[in-house]
Amino acid sequence: MTRLFRPAVNAMRGYVPGEQPKPGSPILKLNSNENPYPPSPKAMAALRSLDSERLRRYPDPFAREFCQAVSDALDVPADWVIVGNGSDDLLNLLIRACAEDDTRQVVYPMPTYVLYRTLAEIQSSRAAEVPYADDFRLPLEALVAAAGAVTLIATPNSPSGHCVPIAELRQLAQRLPGILAIDEAYVDFADQTPLALVREFDNVIVLRTLSKGYSLAGLRLGFAIANPSLLSGLFKVKDSYNVDAVAIAVGAAAIRDQAYKNHCVAQIRTARTQLATTLEQLGFTVWPSQTNFLLVRPAGAKAETLYQQLKSQNILVRYFNQPGLDDKLRITIGTGEQNHTLVQAINGLLG
Amino acid sequence: MTRLFRPAVNAMRGYVPGEQPKPGSPILKLNSNENPYPPSPKAMAALRSLDSERLRRYPDPFAREFCQAVSDALDVPADWVIVGNGSDDLLNLLIRACAEDDTRQVVYPMPTYVLYRTLAEIQSSRAAEVPYADDFRLPLEALVAAAGAVTLIATPNSPSGHCVPIAELRQLAQRLPGILAIDEAYVDFADQTPLALVREFDNVIVLRTLSKGYSLAGLRLGFAIANPSLLSGLFKVKDSYNVDAVAIAVGAAAIRDQAYKNHCVAQIRTARTQLATTLEQLGFTVWPSQTNFLLVRPAGAKAETLYQQLKSQNILVRYFNQPGLDDKLRITIGTGEQNHTLVQAINGLLG
Repeated sequence: MTRLFRPAVNAMRGYVPGEQPKPGSPILKLNSNENPYPPSPKAMAALRSLDSERLRRYPDPFAREFCQAVSDALDVPADWVIVGNGSDDLLNLLIRACAEDDTRQVVYPMPTYVLYRTLAEIQSSRAAEVPYADDFRLPLEALVAAAGAVTLIATPNSPSGHCVPIAELRQLAQRLPGILAIDEAYVDFADQTPLALVREFDNVIVLRTLSKGYSLAGLRLGFAIANPSLLSGLFKVKDSYNVDAVAIAVGAAAIRDQAYKNHCVAQIRTARTQLATTLEQLGFTVWPSQTNFLLVRPAGAKAETLYQQLKSQNILVRYFNQPGLDDKLRITIGTGEQNHTLVQAINGLLG
Repeated sequence: MTRLFRPAVNAMRGYVPGEQPKPGSPILKLNSNENPYPPSPKAMAALRSLDSERLRRYPDPFAREFCQAVSDALDVPADWVIVGNGSDDLLNLLIRACAEDDTRQVVYPMPTYVLYRTLAEIQSSRAAEVPYADDFRLPLEALVAAAGAVTLIATPNSPSGHCVPIAELRQLAQRLPGILAIDEAYVDFADQTPLALVREFDNVIVLRTLSKGYSLAGLRLGFAIANPSLLSGLFKVKDSYNVDAVAIAVGAAAIRDQAYKNHCVAQIRTARTQLATTLEQLGFTVWPSQTNFLLVRPAGAKAETLYQQLKSQNILVRYFNQPGLDDKLRITIGTGEQNHTLVQAINGLLG
């Protein structure tokens, strides 16, 4: 069948989905950085009261109801907002609008979100992967030298959990010839945001999602904020109806309920500190985290072995079988009770 | 800002969304082929009873609950089904997986769904547009000669409303070097389906949507059926979580409720016959339709003038300002009452 597809697609590996046990299964799922708390009751009320007319008709291609909610919540103009079917959709649009072959390449520091490489492969665009230093200092000069059409910086980053300093992002914005895309999937758990850079630089776009802070990974809703001149290129390649009427209504209710989100985030940040302290007491190396997960190096066990042992006890954490990460695990912060279960299991295995 | 984007994107026109009045406005909307009846009550019940856990967690990347419902309703294996964020998403995946530059071109007869051209432009792939004969006979030899990597046939077609004979589709499947994509967005209103061709040919894929027959345009849910070897290439370029948890649950309930869909479709087909007869009595030329719309040539008025006059009376129909179509209008079939309102308005304008 390979004759049917582009050579670049034939060369790609097929997608291997992450471990997604069925809802209701007895598994403690700490592997994909979902929020342990349910979505805002106001978001659920918006879902339950949605008029069937909203489903019968095509949705608003600009999702203006949601953009206005973003505008009100984050104090940005509504026409500086574009919506996506998850922020993955917006990453895809960015690369489709900007990257191609060797002349317009995609650049990002490593390790980071693995989707960046996949999207560059699909686009048949060169991807320049610049290694982070061991202490996750940004390789600023090498990123500038790569002169990307799109430079992607996740901050806070996964799987490291660290934030890139705003001053370094500003330098990138000034010195890069192309777009600086700041992927803020985990921003709700962080102490800072470089969002203000979008007003300073017309080549900066900030991407956000409702999957993490707002507990809506199942809804598929992301958004990005940038100067309308930058958004104009993305609108050209965007599917007209990329975000459905349910996501528009539920997402607007969720983002208007900042109090609920902030309450959940505060609990997760407290639990993050507690879990980090406990794991350090067990001898683990724990990297400082500005996210809802911890990157840790186990003490007294290989990371892969511990991952397998926890899995056999119905606890899923994330193991990356790649150089620089294969001695570490990424563990999503759960509720206090869930984290306690995890620690007890680790104690039983290593104690 | 053009330096930021690919040359092909700079060359594209920006997207101009169709006319989408707000729900609840007094406009009679017969311009985008939405179903005039509400979605299945069982689909709405699935929406209202959705567990918040389904929103908190990432959705199933394979939407197996929905694929099983398709399998049960249409008697195809569940692993022959791929889901999309609307069938537009699946068209996009097809072209991304198969088409590029001049060597792997996209081919389709004209006039047809305008998105095919847009997707080829975004992919920087050559698009070979082969004109239909005046009587909408398929230009079979010219389509074969174009030797597309992807050949797209909408059947029933828009805006013509006609079905392509299955024997001609079979010939295309046999003789084309690439994929034959049969876009069945309007199949629920037709007398026939070439769906069985997917079992005969491993280069045939059939695309469907829940936007038309199932009254779920706002949900964004489409699916395609093909041999798993063909689907494997699409899975490589598909966003992991392209369809959200709400669409999976609501869509599964909708497609399991064939009785409700068939009841709505029967009413629309009856109204279609009635409206066609009435417009013919007013002197209009009406093309035979296997869809939920009519292509008509008005009598005693320019199409564009009649479109504008109807719009000024809050009735939206579709006018295409392009050669071969600019003397015609495309009118969505509404309820009996809505069609009566339309006919009265036309009578008032032309009588």
